[in-house]
Amino acid sequence: MAREVPDAAAVVAYFRRLQDDICRRLAELDPTAKFVEERWKYAAEKKSAGGGGHTRALIGGEVFEKGGVNFSNIHSPALPASASLRRAEVSGKPMSAAGVSVVLHPLNPYVPCCHMNARFFLAAARGETPIWWFGGGYDLTPCYPYPQDCIAWHRAAKRACDPFGAGQYARFKKWCDEYFYLPHRGETRGVGGLFFDDYCAGGFAQAFAFTRAIADSFIAAYRPIVERRRHTPYTAREKKFQEYRRGRYVEFNLAYDRGTRFGLESGGRAESILMSLPPTARWRYAARGDCDADAQKLAPYLQPRDWLNE
Amino acid sequence: MAREVPDAAAVVAYFRRLQDDICRRLAELDPTAKFVEERWKYAAEKKSAGGGGHTRALIGGEVFEKGGVNFSNIHSPALPASASLRRAEVSGKPMSAAGVSVVLHPLNPYVPCCHMNARFFLAAARGETPIWWFGGGYDLTPCYPYPQDCIAWHRAAKRACDPFGAGQYARFKKWCDEYFYLPHRGETRGVGGLFFDDYCAGGFAQAFAFTRAIADSFIAAYRPIVERRRHTPYTAREKKFQEYRRGRYVEFNLAYDRGTRFGLESGGRAESILMSLPPTARWRYAARGDCDADAQKLAPYLQPRDWLNE
Repeated sequence: MAREVPDAAAVVAYFRRLQDDICRRLAELDPTAKFVEERWKYAAEKKSAGGGGHTRALIGGEVFEKGGVNFSNIHSPALPASASLRRAEVSGKPMSAAGVSVVLHPLNPYVPCCHMNARFFLAAARGETPIWWFGGGYDLTPCYPYPQDCIAWHRAAKRACDPFGAGQYARFKKWCDEYFYLPHRGETRGVGGLFFDDYCAGGFAQAFAFTRAIADSFIAAYRPIVERRRHTPYTAREKKFQEYRRGRYVEFNLAYDRGTRFGLESGGRAESILMSLPPTARWRYAARGDCDADAQKLAPYLQPRDWLNE
Repeated sequence: MAREVPDAAAVVAYFRRLQDDICRRLAELDPTAKFVEERWKYAAEKKSAGGGGHTRALIGGEVFEKGGVNFSNIHSPALPASASLRRAEVSGKPMSAAGVSVVLHPLNPYVPCCHMNARFFLAAARGETPIWWFGGGYDLTPCYPYPQDCIAWHRAAKRACDPFGAGQYARFKKWCDEYFYLPHRGETRGVGGLFFDDYCAGGFAQAFAFTRAIADSFIAAYRPIVERRRHTPYTAREKKFQEYRRGRYVEFNLAYDRGTRFGLESGGRAESILMSLPPTARWRYAARGDCDADAQKLAPYLQPRDWLNE
């Protein structure tokens, strides 16, 4: 945990630019999608809490059925437990948390769902050296996976990591597989990517540069996959299977995701936090038939795989 | 916490009969619904774990789109944390947990969703006096609520409680309002009913009789509501609103429900535990239009109300 004084303002400014940049690129990719924008203030009723966010929800596009690109920057007199599980020394201290979160639920079941996050935490009691760290990453969740897409996605992730050290990709790829895991289903949420947290390696400037490198590589990694799959014809059968798979996405996000729990526990804005949930989802008992056949084809993709050496 | 030796076998036998009885009555109410039955064994790989369950999933009926009536009776060498939050003294001790759970998701948006549970826990280390308790209750979740239904439902609940003391209904009605609450939405899951836990009042025979009285009154309370509403005409608009409301049901069950967390944490059978999830659900960012109008009409029902004195 780093104990130098970080340039929080520079991080927040970067996150705002990142949100703008991602929204602009998504609008290019899907000019039919509408952005619904909302600026909100964080829990003004709480003493010494402050900040807020800028939610940009994406709805009803030809490519993206639902999604969002959210910026938030909140200040709280006490860090909630979900953010400080690994670091008891900052629990209950005043904190700031800023970040950008992206979740995209495509309309076409052949286009994978994706998620990106970049975040920065700063915790400090008055007169103490601040404690800070970065976190983030991105991961891909296909219903009908193509090895070509999985390999391209992981190659892009590795390229973004490589300038920061040889082991970075392997470490954060593994963390992603472990984090986005549904123990009750015995499967990962998708085919993974990168996940990092508690990151302050090399000091503030270096850790910030790493976070930027990952976040900036996200759209470039995702865009070609969308372009390759967006015109794949599909029927009601594939749409239905996509909706069952979205059910697993919901299970992960509500039951396990630390980001979602942190948001809800810290009194964040529910509509913004739960923007990650899909437009539709289905559950049925013990899936059979077509749905089961598709699930069996998907199953080998929902265990950690070494995509760069297959 | 009672320290007499309870007749666990009698409780388990009652739960089996209760499951049969509820299934028979549901089959009368909706002869078109199919029951998919499965008997499963609990985590046989775990040393000294045992027992299992009998899942009876209900699918594709004219009245019930999806639902289930589950019996389970599991034994574990250690009680998971979610079951023992209130009683540190039993955490980690060998335990048995038996129960019946019912969740019904009707097809027609005018028929409310309902949930019933009756459960029995027994925890004891070798040579120690056993610690046991009952829990249970039922609650109603309408999309298009009718005061007549809410009042009838709560009257039935009170009638079941009354023989066991004057304050019982009020106490467990309040607990239900508090338990089935979505803090991030600032609303209850539905119009409530009864919720009790840690129940051993009056000793084993009396607590068992109370649990039976509640569980046995459930179908009689629900059936007239179903019959009154099942032929109400509806359009795609109401169906869509039902699916948004089912989204809230999913949010509660996955993010907050202790029963669901207990099941998943104790390595229970995921398909059986998550049978409570609806067949379909929707989320959209900041609902507007028809959906918002319906939500505004529903809102006053999603705050605790004194249904017997309105």
